Amino acid sequence: MAVPDPRTWLELHRRVRFGDTDAAGVMHFHQLLRWCHEAYEESLERFGIAAAAVFPTPGENLAVALPIVHCSADFRRPLVCGDALAIALEPQRLERGRFEVRYRFRFANPDHEGSADPSQAADRPPAAEPLAAQGLTSHIAIESSTRRRCDLPEPIERWLEASSLGQGPRPL
Amino acid sequence: MAVPDPRTWLELHRRVRFGDTDAAGVMHFHQLLRWCHEAYEESLERFGIAAAAVFPTPGENLAVALPIVHCSADFRRPLVCGDALAIALEPQRLERGRFEVRYRFRFANPDHEGSADPSQAADRPPAAEPLAAQGLTSHIAIESSTRRRCDLPEPIERWLEASSLGQGPRPL
Amino acid sequence: MAVPDPRTWLELHRRVRFGDTDAAGVMHFHQLLRWCHEAYEESLERFGIAAAAVFPTPGENLAVALPIVHCSADFRRPLVCGDALAIALEPQRLERGRFEVRYRFRFANPDHEGSADPSQAADRPPAAEPLAAQGLTSHIAIESSTRRRCDLPEPIERWLEASSLGQGPRPL
Amino acid sequence: MAVPDPRTWLELHRRVRFGDTDAAGVMHFHQLLRWCHEAYEESLERFGIAAAAVFPTPGENLAVALPIVHCSADFRRPLVCGDALAIALEPQRLERGRFEVRYRFRFANPDHEGSADPSQAADRPPAAEPLAAQGLTSHIAIESSTRRRCDLPEPIERWLEASSLGQGPRPL
Repeated sequence: MAVPDPRTWLELHRRVRFGDTDAAGVMHFHQLLRWCHEAYEESLERFGIAAAAVFPTPGENLAVALPIVHCSADFRRPLVCGDALAIALEPQRLERGRFEVRYRFRFANPDHEGSADPSQAADRPPAAEPLAAQGLTSHIAIESSTRRRCDLPEPIERWLEASSLGQGPRPL
Repeated sequence: MAVPDPRTWLELHRRVRFGDTDAAGVMHFHQLLRWCHEAYEESLERFGIAAAAVFPTPGENLAVALPIVHCSADFRRPLVCGDALAIALEPQRLERGRFEVRYRFRFANPDHEGSADPSQAADRPPAAEPLAAQGLTSHIAIESSTRRRCDLPEPIERWLEASSLGQGPRPL
Repeated sequence: MAVPDPRTWLELHRRVRFGDTDAAGVMHFHQLLRWCHEAYEESLERFGIAAAAVFPTPGENLAVALPIVHCSADFRRPLVCGDALAIALEPQRLERGRFEVRYRFRFANPDHEGSADPSQAADRPPAAEPLAAQGLTSHIAIESSTRRRCDLPEPIERWLEASSLGQGPRPL
Repeated sequence: MAVPDPRTWLELHRRVRFGDTDAAGVMHFHQLLRWCHEAYEESLERFGIAAAAVFPTPGENLAVALPIVHCSADFRRPLVCGDALAIALEPQRLERGRFEVRYRFRFANPDHEGSADPSQAADRPPAAEPLAAQGLTSHIAIESSTRRRCDLPEPIERWLEASSLGQGPRPL
């Protein structure tokens, strides 16, 4: 099966919404971690992995769970309601049964200098924008029944493998 | 078993936190529904019902689930970061296998006129404060396996029964 | 200026994400109200209204605020992680300085019977799907400085006007 | 002014609520960062600093904002609905105009071995519990109008100073 163009599943977009902000007028810090996880889910979905193959749903007994054991975020620029963001994901397999995903958020607003419009990528890739924020989630595989460490499930292995291929020549 | 004083489990308190606000400077509307559910959970806990007897936890198979089928909220006053709130709960059994909880939020700040301090309740009960907001959650009982309507679980019946006794003479 | 096709800004889509669920395995109720507000923001944006024209952002002093004074939601079907949803918005001007928005959520999953794919709308419109949930937000216009009731801001008037035109012949 | 006993404002408590969990049955990771910030706010409040002195509220123009520039969290044990947690805060002044707060979460359930009941602290302090999770928030002071780095506001300086005194002899 051909791997879809990584640009379609490792470069995502979202807007800052009003409920993401706080009384300081800018995005409240922990919302970024929610955005990271939602980007991870969207990436799997666009790559072709059904949510139910990775995340527990009623009546489905998944043999393997993928809890987050660590996360972090860095905030470089204030994000305000309506800001359009480009999110570049960098998944990476670590030791057996463990992987992490790095998320880089850049402005994709028409009114910020530069643009994340893929049609202009040859002239000015999203990577040319200053970094607005970045996040990291680190996941381990455990057997759902015993909570013992185990190998990553096959769909995640496939996604990680394809990600590593895609990352070779990218300037991100 | 003696029922604990309803004031200890039907009158709760919380503060508006910074992350509850949005860029308009006041509580973002849907946070109130979260507060309602957390107040419902705290009320059960203070009444003496363990969370695991009502809410699903890993490895516990609860026969009955209590999904919310309806909720609403009314917002009367802007709530700002740091505001102390008194929450009065009014649980009510409806038809078989259904109940609702009404939540009235009043200011309990020392710097608002009046006070929700229980020690002053004789002079000026929280009920004398103007209503800042109110919420409603409506729950039905269903069998977890079939999702068919069924009777309320026994702990909830007990809590509803005690609530109805407690509500008789209260001026709320 | 021509009004864009209402299908592009009154019919939106989103997925249920893992963080939207709770330990019962389904969407936690109050997330739906967040989705409603995000759909309202996305609708304005797709219609052509910049977020900063309606929602406070740092350094912009908006003369008029649009606080929510009431909201409600009804939950008909369990929503699980990965579910694709079509959201139909029905904004409506009420008395002077007040409007409400109704949000109807239907399944748009390929694996649910029927489909919300616009390309199939002639055969089977999203409206043919059973309702999964619905929400309502009710907004008033107030002067930001005095918090007194006032007229709706012009962009919202335009959006409401265009919505009422679009709703005439729709089977929703 | 005498500094209140650090145990009252550096050791806090909270329960895991149903809405904090996800379909895997345990606390959804980013909720912990919300808990961290709420603990920071509660600590300031218990220490005697009004929310409005540190967090923006409508009509109050704070000269200094304290945005979070970095956060992280580590998750050691699954947290389930109803779990009672003890939170130990360790605020620390870093270079000029910067501080961080470390948050250690331990089980305070009667049914976990050990207890965070302060009355038993002599026999078995909360610190004797295994760590369930920890968080970190790192804050800088900026002038609200220019967003330039500046000194920490006086109330935060006082809180940091008192924290550093309190931390000397503690076994945490």
